Amino acid sequence: MNPGGAYTRDSRYLATRITADGRDGFPVEAGRYRLVVSRACPWASRAVIVRRLLGLERALPMAVAGPTHDERSWTFDLDPGGRDPVLGIERLQEAYLARDPDYDRGVTVPAIVDVTTGKVVSNDFARITIDMSLEWSAHHRSGAPALYPPALRDEIDAVNEAVYRDVNNGVYRAGFAGSQKAYEAAHERLFARLDLLSDRLRESRYLVGGTVTEADVRLFTTLVRFDAVYHGHFKCNRRKLSEMPVLWAYARDLFQTPGFGDTVDFDHIKRHYYVVHRDINPTGIVPAGPDLSNWLEPHDRAALGGTPFGRATPPGPVAPEEAVPGAHNPLAA
Amino acid sequence: MNPGGAYTRDSRYLATRITADGRDGFPVEAGRYRLVVSRACPWASRAVIVRRLLGLERALPMAVAGPTHDERSWTFDLDPGGRDPVLGIERLQEAYLARDPDYDRGVTVPAIVDVTTGKVVSNDFARITIDMSLEWSAHHRSGAPALYPPALRDEIDAVNEAVYRDVNNGVYRAGFAGSQKAYEAAHERLFARLDLLSDRLRESRYLVGGTVTEADVRLFTTLVRFDAVYHGHFKCNRRKLSEMPVLWAYARDLFQTPGFGDTVDFDHIKRHYYVVHRDINPTGIVPAGPDLSNWLEPHDRAALGGTPFGRATPPGPVAPEEAVPGAHNPLAA
Repeated sequence: MNPGGAYTRDSRYLATRITADGRDGFPVEAGRYRLVVSRACPWASRAVIVRRLLGLERALPMAVAGPTHDERSWTFDLDPGGRDPVLGIERLQEAYLARDPDYDRGVTVPAIVDVTTGKVVSNDFARITIDMSLEWSAHHRSGAPALYPPALRDEIDAVNEAVYRDVNNGVYRAGFAGSQKAYEAAHERLFARLDLLSDRLRESRYLVGGTVTEADVRLFTTLVRFDAVYHGHFKCNRRKLSEMPVLWAYARDLFQTPGFGDTVDFDHIKRHYYVVHRDINPTGIVPAGPDLSNWLEPHDRAALGGTPFGRATPPGPVAPEEAVPGAHNPLAA
Repeated sequence: MNPGGAYTRDSRYLATRITADGRDGFPVEAGRYRLVVSRACPWASRAVIVRRLLGLERALPMAVAGPTHDERSWTFDLDPGGRDPVLGIERLQEAYLARDPDYDRGVTVPAIVDVTTGKVVSNDFARITIDMSLEWSAHHRSGAPALYPPALRDEIDAVNEAVYRDVNNGVYRAGFAGSQKAYEAAHERLFARLDLLSDRLRESRYLVGGTVTEADVRLFTTLVRFDAVYHGHFKCNRRKLSEMPVLWAYARDLFQTPGFGDTVDFDHIKRHYYVVHRDINPTGIVPAGPDLSNWLEPHDRAALGGTPFGRATPPGPVAPEEAVPGAHNPLAA
């Protein structure tokens, strides 16, 4: 929190990367690493979607932390005995402390852990999905889409920067503002950006080019949480997503695209935000709404041209061990 | 709060009434009493609306308390010097303590104060509006509507009882629930009742009969606050009012009817709930949304038949000294 009450995200992430050439000592290697996520977290959910779009499920297995936690952060309380079956730990914090016994920054997801040592290699969420596209290509499924194609990178980067500042992180700046003024500034920037994005998407099915890219993944993980948590809990309430016709149709289109909606757990999302942030929701009561059935309504975006995957193919069905329970997602209900 | 975490409203109100025959010692008399309200409060707002519909502004002058307050309740901080110019007091509490030095219940609005003694006569909000209709009739304006006509009383009473339990007080039972279970029960009853009310109003312009009655006033004061405070702050979020087409058109119709929307101060409403209830909004930050301009959109309810006032007439323009500031209400903007 700065003196004006503005929320500032701690963006000092672990600097090591998993690369094809292994220059940081962590070469890409099927089965060596474990992607730790929470389905509640928008930053982790980017990695969950990209992993599935690219077909990295076998090469990079995933551990799903429970949606709620105390001040020591994410735990494996969904697993039998409360321990991740591969890493053998109860809390993700243990893997951060294995990496650095003096670690004093955020115990965040996504985190990629080297299973051979039990140490976190990377928690740099913005880097992780790009590296999945570019460094892990030897393990992509056949027909995997190019989510970060060279010809579109500058444009994707430019869109991502504005979306990060005003939308992805903007909702947190509104929700965790320490002053009325800081809140109002964040709220104004958020909705101004959403208006610009609506203009961009009015005649274009996707943000950049004619197919799904990294830019769509990053905007989607905020939009899918908008009415469930950001609208009320973070006071991003000029309008609901469902009251912004272009963005709402765009979000439904992605939700109904294999690899997006089928990774979403609305129960985890709602319980995480409303239970963990006692500073803004002291009762810990989790809202019963919103009604989620409308995520499956027709989106009519196909008429704009473009196809989700171009010459690539959609991912197959979700593996049973990674399926979201039906009560947590209208697609699975 | 009861053991199950359910919120229970303290309904022990002062028992004395102002009547035409003065049987409790408080005869109806123009200029003798002062109606103390807050425009934030739905219970007080009923009295503000009924007073205006019946043209009681001169006979029963009004004091408007500021929207925010501390644990000692409503204050006259909007008035010069922070004192009500007629009662000469800073806090409504003083008029309650003048009535009873040991008064230990809620310092609530609406409250009618006897100006000759400075003592509260009545704070029984459900009684106050009915008495305005039936006991104050000698001072009604020419053309005042019958808001509680004898032939419709049983039906109005029945509607009011269900609306009070599940909607007017139901939103508070959701917002102030002390347990997840109590919250969910209140939320379920609220939306089940709103669905029934939608059915009732689908082909009927008003709740009872072909004109505005007391029943419409009571439902309106909750609906007009729904998206501004109850949806987010009280977690009544299955749907916004703006997502319930029948109720939303019904509410807009009333909002646009003289005597209803022109009494509404959205700034007072939002600041009161979000600033005063620190137990559920510890930051005291007041949301910037929702966008309110849509209250003026066409409602298309006239086609259902019925007219707001039947053979009676609408009230004239709001007196300048009682006008809501333009920035607080789209009608006045």
